[in-house]
Amino acid sequence: MSPLPVAFADICAGPRSEIEAALARSVDPRPGVPPRLADAMRYSLMAGGKRLRPLLALWACEAVGSRREAAMPAAVAVEMVHTYSLIHDDLPAMDDDDLRRGRPTCHKEFDDATAVLAGDALLTLAFETLADRLRADHAAACCRELAVGAGWAGMVGGQHDDLDAEGRFDPTDDDPTGNIASPTDPESIHARKTGALIVASLRIGAITGNASQAELARLAEYGRHLGLAFQIVDDLLDATGDAPTMGKAVGKDVDSGKATYPARFGIDESRRLAERAVAAARDSLSELSGPTGPLESVASFVLDRDH
Amino acid sequence: MSPLPVAFADICAGPRSEIEAALARSVDPRPGVPPRLADAMRYSLMAGGKRLRPLLALWACEAVGSRREAAMPAAVAVEMVHTYSLIHDDLPAMDDDDLRRGRPTCHKEFDDATAVLAGDALLTLAFETLADRLRADHAAACCRELAVGAGWAGMVGGQHDDLDAEGRFDPTDDDPTGNIASPTDPESIHARKTGALIVASLRIGAITGNASQAELARLAEYGRHLGLAFQIVDDLLDATGDAPTMGKAVGKDVDSGKATYPARFGIDESRRLAERAVAAARDSLSELSGPTGPLESVASFVLDRDH
Repeated sequence: MSPLPVAFADICAGPRSEIEAALARSVDPRPGVPPRLADAMRYSLMAGGKRLRPLLALWACEAVGSRREAAMPAAVAVEMVHTYSLIHDDLPAMDDDDLRRGRPTCHKEFDDATAVLAGDALLTLAFETLADRLRADHAAACCRELAVGAGWAGMVGGQHDDLDAEGRFDPTDDDPTGNIASPTDPESIHARKTGALIVASLRIGAITGNASQAELARLAEYGRHLGLAFQIVDDLLDATGDAPTMGKAVGKDVDSGKATYPARFGIDESRRLAERAVAAARDSLSELSGPTGPLESVASFVLDRDH
Repeated sequence: MSPLPVAFADICAGPRSEIEAALARSVDPRPGVPPRLADAMRYSLMAGGKRLRPLLALWACEAVGSRREAAMPAAVAVEMVHTYSLIHDDLPAMDDDDLRRGRPTCHKEFDDATAVLAGDALLTLAFETLADRLRADHAAACCRELAVGAGWAGMVGGQHDDLDAEGRFDPTDDDPTGNIASPTDPESIHARKTGALIVASLRIGAITGNASQAELARLAEYGRHLGLAFQIVDDLLDATGDAPTMGKAVGKDVDSGKATYPARFGIDESRRLAERAVAAARDSLSELSGPTGPLESVASFVLDRDH
């Protein structure tokens, strides 16, 4: 059901190099900015990665019939927010990770205080980017969407409950259908920790492309399914992947008793749930006014990635 | 030269109770928000304090001839940003403070991870508040001003250099006139760490009151002088105050070799510099279209406060 990885790489190449260039410009030295702080921000922001969220922002803009250039400030902003969340999540006070994308994490390369501040500054710069570079009505709508997706009822809330669930989730729970109303249920945690920023990336990209409310709703639905698939595959990779390919420590989720899909449903059923989520994501792309090919491809790619 | 403290308390009473009510509403429980995360945010946001920044936002709105109600979202947002900065500054990785406003700091009352996330969530909620509750052109302008004031060239940059200067600033430096171009000079650090958010508070309050560019410039000038006075007095209180009155540890700045005004200029000259800054602040308030009495009073109050 999935296109060849080569084809997906081809689809990504152009937009991704545009994104890399825009990200690099966004952390160029500026007067009044401490060089070491800017270095830490740049170190983490320019560490590579899939650039999934900014790609989604650009492609959502295209999917509602606009040119992707319009969405570049949105793309930069969501990657800044994603990067800030990784920097803070890796801190000793949080997940305490030493390795990220094959390199020392920000607080290992710099220090804990600089990592806290670099994360704070990237989050703040994301909103500045939207407010400064989009026309006022788009800026206001995008700042709102980004704050909702990244905030206490979104990404930060999910991260809180993910930490809270460490060691408290019982993989032998005899109700495998799950109760998704429970705040420490993996689906609820994933929907907020990973899904909310993915949904926001799509919506703010689409807003900069003058999307209708109906289009925003379709893209949000796509994003919810995609985010779920993405997190299930993340859990599967943590349970079955190897550290050199992943560029980070693996097996940590199982070790820490985190509420993962494999822990709850097993490897095979988790894989099936991911496939079902990807199919639902692709179904959500009907009735959009622009080309949706890249968004269809990314859904399949999420399923097949190995890191 | 200053009005009686009682008179200032009278000026503050009404606006401050409006602010307290608006802040309390802003962290009311919401679906999808982890209760413990919301508790931590509320614990720090509702811990009292002078509410200086939100008062400045409301009074800046009045000073440009509008009703202060228009500035309440701005007032709430700046206090959220101020509170987030205190939570993160108090972390063990940063200033490592156990006491704030006479109570345990957020990470002592909860834990380090929750404090990181509560700070992140308050910063994010500040932008949501502006984007959600102001009309689009005001929202975009205010998000931009807040991000600039709180960001890498503003508050976060100043905090970085303040930490960087710990132990590196030599109080026996024989050039007491100072070189304000140096990034670790106390005036440069203060202008960003404290001044930038004070300036942003005034400007976004004034924006919600439909200020002209000239009015914004006057209020920014007022804010720069006020912020400088405020930080000098903070340094003086740390050097000369007592812990019970201050509600936090004192003498820490001297102990850690921080680049404070008293360390550089001595107690008496620091006091004179603060007085000069307050006079300059009051001078900046001419040519505004609305009442400036409260802003004049607050300048004097900053000089006379004992905590």
